[in-house]
Amino acid sequence: MSTSLTKGEKTRDKIIRKAAAVFNLHGYSGTSLSELMEETGLEKGGIYRHFESKEELAVAAFDYAWSEIRLRRRIALDEIPTPLGKLHGMIDGFAAKPSPVPGGCALMNTAIDADDGNPALRAHAREALREWLDYLEALVRQGIRQDEIARGVSPAAIASTIIATLEGALMISRLSDDRSALDNARKHLHTMLDGIARKAG
Amino acid sequence: MSTSLTKGEKTRDKIIRKAAAVFNLHGYSGTSLSELMEETGLEKGGIYRHFESKEELAVAAFDYAWSEIRLRRRIALDEIPTPLGKLHGMIDGFAAKPSPVPGGCALMNTAIDADDGNPALRAHAREALREWLDYLEALVRQGIRQDEIARGVSPAAIASTIIATLEGALMISRLSDDRSALDNARKHLHTMLDGIARKAG
Repeated sequence: MSTSLTKGEKTRDKIIRKAAAVFNLHGYSGTSLSELMEETGLEKGGIYRHFESKEELAVAAFDYAWSEIRLRRRIALDEIPTPLGKLHGMIDGFAAKPSPVPGGCALMNTAIDADDGNPALRAHAREALREWLDYLEALVRQGIRQDEIARGVSPAAIASTIIATLEGALMISRLSDDRSALDNARKHLHTMLDGIARKAG
Repeated sequence: MSTSLTKGEKTRDKIIRKAAAVFNLHGYSGTSLSELMEETGLEKGGIYRHFESKEELAVAAFDYAWSEIRLRRRIALDEIPTPLGKLHGMIDGFAAKPSPVPGGCALMNTAIDADDGNPALRAHAREALREWLDYLEALVRQGIRQDEIARGVSPAAIASTIIATLEGALMISRLSDDRSALDNARKHLHTMLDGIARKAG
């Protein structure tokens, strides 16, 4: 695929990749056009040839960051055979690996930063969250069907508790410059999953 | 006390209160001087007579927002007699009541927004987080001493898990415009506290 990219498409991709890091570090409203020009090495006209507005570029940059996060997650979890194993693996991956785009979790940053000013960006962040929740809920449901997870467990509650605990712990770890909140979250969520695992026998 | 405020002090207080809402809604880097002028009804000179820079005003606004949060927490928890009861009460209060300053949790907003650009603001947010962690850790330790909470529990792990889960759930609830993540977090944390309670007998 990539060999067939035109020069214009390559430039567009480069703008998105560079912009994703800038937006994720400085926020949507904290990112100026001059920073985007500096990072991409392009003039204003070179950027706006590809994107109608800063808002449109921010949406493309978020979608790129999220696709990188999703790709990394898929690579890590595809080789784990069971749904409960995948849930444990997702927690370990989140707690252990820094974000593929610098500046922390693109979802949390965008959720906090875009709660005013860029409704399109907010809609994409909301869609990404929904997709992540759906993925975890499906794993819990699959685990229940395969008798790996106890019946009566709420897939929606488990999914939202995992994401909440990990995202909140990442915020604490980044603010305090100390990984222990992420370590605590990891251990706590593994214990929670052990508690909903169907006991053998 | 308040009767002895000079006109200048009253103006300074008003600027801080108005600015706290603007910064919490739009972020440090997303807040412009013209917005601050509009909200306070003051000219640039009227604001800068009281604060040397936007950075200094943002720090004062964060400290004000945090003191409001702390005051509300103290009022709600002072009447609960036991440490474990206070932990349950803190969780209920967080999940039930909107932030006293519009725009969600000032701590999370500031942690995400000030990870670049305003090191003084970041230091104040880190200090606020440390204080909140210390408060919860002290309650867990007190609960252990009073035989309300099982020995062997890590006060630091419990404190960081509570804050992480609540803050992450607030992020999800705000992004998805749906309180269920906060409800799930509340129930999950009550169950966690029930699990560390010292069993009678």
